[in-house]
Amino acid sequence: MKLPDHITESDWSIALSELCAWLRFPSVSTDPEYSPHVHACAQFTANLMTQYGLTTTVIETKGYPVILGEWMGHPGAPTLLIYGHYDVQPPDPVSLWVTDPFEPLIKDGQLIARGASDNKGQIFCHLKAIDWLLRTTGTLPVNVKVMIEGEEEVGSFHLPEVLRTHAHQLAADVALVSDTPMLADNQPSLCTSLRGLVYMEMTITTLAGDLHSGQHGGAVPNAIGCLVSLLNRVKDESGRIQIPHFYEGVPDISSDRAAQIRSLGFDTGQYQSAIGASGLVGEEGFHPYEQRWYRPTFDINGIWGGYTLEGEKTVIPAQAHAKVSMRLVGHQDPLKVIDRFNEYIQAQCPTYASITTRVCSYAYPAQVDDGHPAVLAAMQGLRESFGVEPVFQGEGGTIPIVADFKRQLGLETILMGLNLPEDRIHAPNEQMSLANIQRGIMASMGMMTAYGKCWSPSLPSPP
Amino acid sequence: MKLPDHITESDWSIALSELCAWLRFPSVSTDPEYSPHVHACAQFTANLMTQYGLTTTVIETKGYPVILGEWMGHPGAPTLLIYGHYDVQPPDPVSLWVTDPFEPLIKDGQLIARGASDNKGQIFCHLKAIDWLLRTTGTLPVNVKVMIEGEEEVGSFHLPEVLRTHAHQLAADVALVSDTPMLADNQPSLCTSLRGLVYMEMTITTLAGDLHSGQHGGAVPNAIGCLVSLLNRVKDESGRIQIPHFYEGVPDISSDRAAQIRSLGFDTGQYQSAIGASGLVGEEGFHPYEQRWYRPTFDINGIWGGYTLEGEKTVIPAQAHAKVSMRLVGHQDPLKVIDRFNEYIQAQCPTYASITTRVCSYAYPAQVDDGHPAVLAAMQGLRESFGVEPVFQGEGGTIPIVADFKRQLGLETILMGLNLPEDRIHAPNEQMSLANIQRGIMASMGMMTAYGKCWSPSLPSPP
Repeated sequence: MKLPDHITESDWSIALSELCAWLRFPSVSTDPEYSPHVHACAQFTANLMTQYGLTTTVIETKGYPVILGEWMGHPGAPTLLIYGHYDVQPPDPVSLWVTDPFEPLIKDGQLIARGASDNKGQIFCHLKAIDWLLRTTGTLPVNVKVMIEGEEEVGSFHLPEVLRTHAHQLAADVALVSDTPMLADNQPSLCTSLRGLVYMEMTITTLAGDLHSGQHGGAVPNAIGCLVSLLNRVKDESGRIQIPHFYEGVPDISSDRAAQIRSLGFDTGQYQSAIGASGLVGEEGFHPYEQRWYRPTFDINGIWGGYTLEGEKTVIPAQAHAKVSMRLVGHQDPLKVIDRFNEYIQAQCPTYASITTRVCSYAYPAQVDDGHPAVLAAMQGLRESFGVEPVFQGEGGTIPIVADFKRQLGLETILMGLNLPEDRIHAPNEQMSLANIQRGIMASMGMMTAYGKCWSPSLPSPP
Repeated sequence: MKLPDHITESDWSIALSELCAWLRFPSVSTDPEYSPHVHACAQFTANLMTQYGLTTTVIETKGYPVILGEWMGHPGAPTLLIYGHYDVQPPDPVSLWVTDPFEPLIKDGQLIARGASDNKGQIFCHLKAIDWLLRTTGTLPVNVKVMIEGEEEVGSFHLPEVLRTHAHQLAADVALVSDTPMLADNQPSLCTSLRGLVYMEMTITTLAGDLHSGQHGGAVPNAIGCLVSLLNRVKDESGRIQIPHFYEGVPDISSDRAAQIRSLGFDTGQYQSAIGASGLVGEEGFHPYEQRWYRPTFDINGIWGGYTLEGEKTVIPAQAHAKVSMRLVGHQDPLKVIDRFNEYIQAQCPTYASITTRVCSYAYPAQVDDGHPAVLAAMQGLRESFGVEPVFQGEGGTIPIVADFKRQLGLETILMGLNLPEDRIHAPNEQMSLANIQRGIMASMGMMTAYGKCWSPSLPSPP
């Protein structure tokens, strides 16, 4: 694509170097070892926002700081609250990366680094749109508040309190989040539903200590064997989750939605090839988009126990561990799901074993009203920037803040994804294409412009 | 117990300090990082044997050296081949030890260190018996050869070749091994059967790389889920292994043997309490001693996949791994078992996954002729040293060399265990009691003396 006339190649080059500087911070929020880097990244984020023309505040929390910026120079115009996060997922397994995960590499038109898509690359599009609009026009079409947090990847634990204590400072007409992917390359989309999440860790114990598998093998309970058997009882052969009352609050998929999903043209072969799978496996009777967007899941995210180093050790392990997660939809309540999972696992646990579980995080699912004026403005921004008509879609991932915006601030959230499903977020070689970063900046500028135009004091405020 | 009159407290004190010096070498054979320590330990072993009066040779192999020592000063007397190993299991999890695993600690009459029982502590009893006999009498009742290897914990990979190339140097009348436990504290026993082993590692792959569990969860195959399901299909609810033809070569347990086993007086409650289990689980219809000595097993020794570090990572793992092992009995052939395991796992593997397996090691099971004159001599040595009548028992562990002694050198092997089942070999806080180290030295001296006496040129050689 072509940059607008008033934006020079030099502007773009500066933008890219600023984004790369941001990506160099290993702001991994889940691992305490990275803590100094996460804090340094927070400070850099605040400095960048200030440099781009926002009045910036660093809100300290019991976890990582939340950075707030605002430009309120347009009295009477609507206020957009843009949300993103500066923290990232862990980079491991590091050996599978083509570059150091925190040393951005540009290759074949892709910017490769941890955070390139999720979420620094995408939130950067909005920050740079603000910078370019302010520098070339001296103003913005709407008032803007920007909130960038550092705990999204660990469940945004301290953010709800910030929403409560800073509700006045965060007052806005609508929220805007770019933390979901477009439907496909060159097919922009707006997302109208998000899944919730329950993430738990479980530990099973069968013995006081590891035993020699020769001397005791055959008579004593193996903790891994027990864990394997328990995990295997969570789903049946058809992929249906066996936890009693788990599906309470899961909405039926309407025939309209089912038809719309099928009109999106999902290519199974292409999808399998993109993810390197030789087959798909999901809940029977549902379309893959339904399985990924509108149905709940149970997945094992990690497992460990016994001897896992080089060579062999003939032990019967006394303990085994797993990290598991459930994605939730519609009106499923994560707190009820946690209780039901615990009840089920304890009921299934044999008498010779004991289990403890720990909740790592949880989040409510969310739906978005697609009739909001800002949705139309976002559609227009995407349409102009990509030259393609955007579509509506769902999203299987979780952005806890979206449910909180609605519950605590009364805000609808526009989910304007700017990266691609194949951008390997949370995995090695996370990327975002340079073209989509440029289009993202343009789409953000276009959205703000369109939202500013559709607004007039004679119209009622949006709901 | 009391030391014999001709052995002073000072002799015992020196013995203990020599054993501790040996235990300080972290001679972990399975992990290449320890390689320099294993080699240093081999040299120390050779020096110790020389110091004790043996003519010592270091046999280099493609792995770790085998140390051979001999005293052949008694022409016409029988020759005993004593076997042991100077390598040890890995110490992890190190945090569960009460001492540095390679800094021996004496506490409540126990010597605590990795290798205290398995096998440095036990083989030391024979070495010190030789030393004390030679120093106090100037001779030995029999000719003695000692072979101490450094790869027992990784399947004695290079030892069969040493047996072939050094068959003449190893020629003997009977072998003696102390690498099995006594039946119980103060209940010495001779072991008449050993289980074999197949130890394998398996890797399952379902995707080209890890995926975001939100964006893709519900539609794509999870490698851990797949591994868990496969592992769960190896045994049925009654504990019976489902691999076709797996039980070929497993002998029925005779009614005599079953009666003898039940006469040993197994106390389930005491056993559970000793291992910290709140229940036992094994193949239905068999006594715990039968399950542990005379029945084959399948155990998962290690499992890992996905995110296993601190906190959470919402991935669908592309790969998952397990270490599994099978103990074999009677005439089960490890090579056939490997093939059958592979066939079963591949047949059970769903089309959307691929599995690779790797054999880490294997060993044949072995039986010992309990009518051998050296068995009677060993019984006498134990009887005198412990003041208790020894019993016969089986052993669930594996000593590959015992089958090789029979197959390659034509030797019967006397299995004279000197440590206890609760000595935590292969686990944190491995120990051997000082009393049993002393009794072990006495038993070895008594066994050599009795074997020397029962021998006369007028009797035929043992078979």
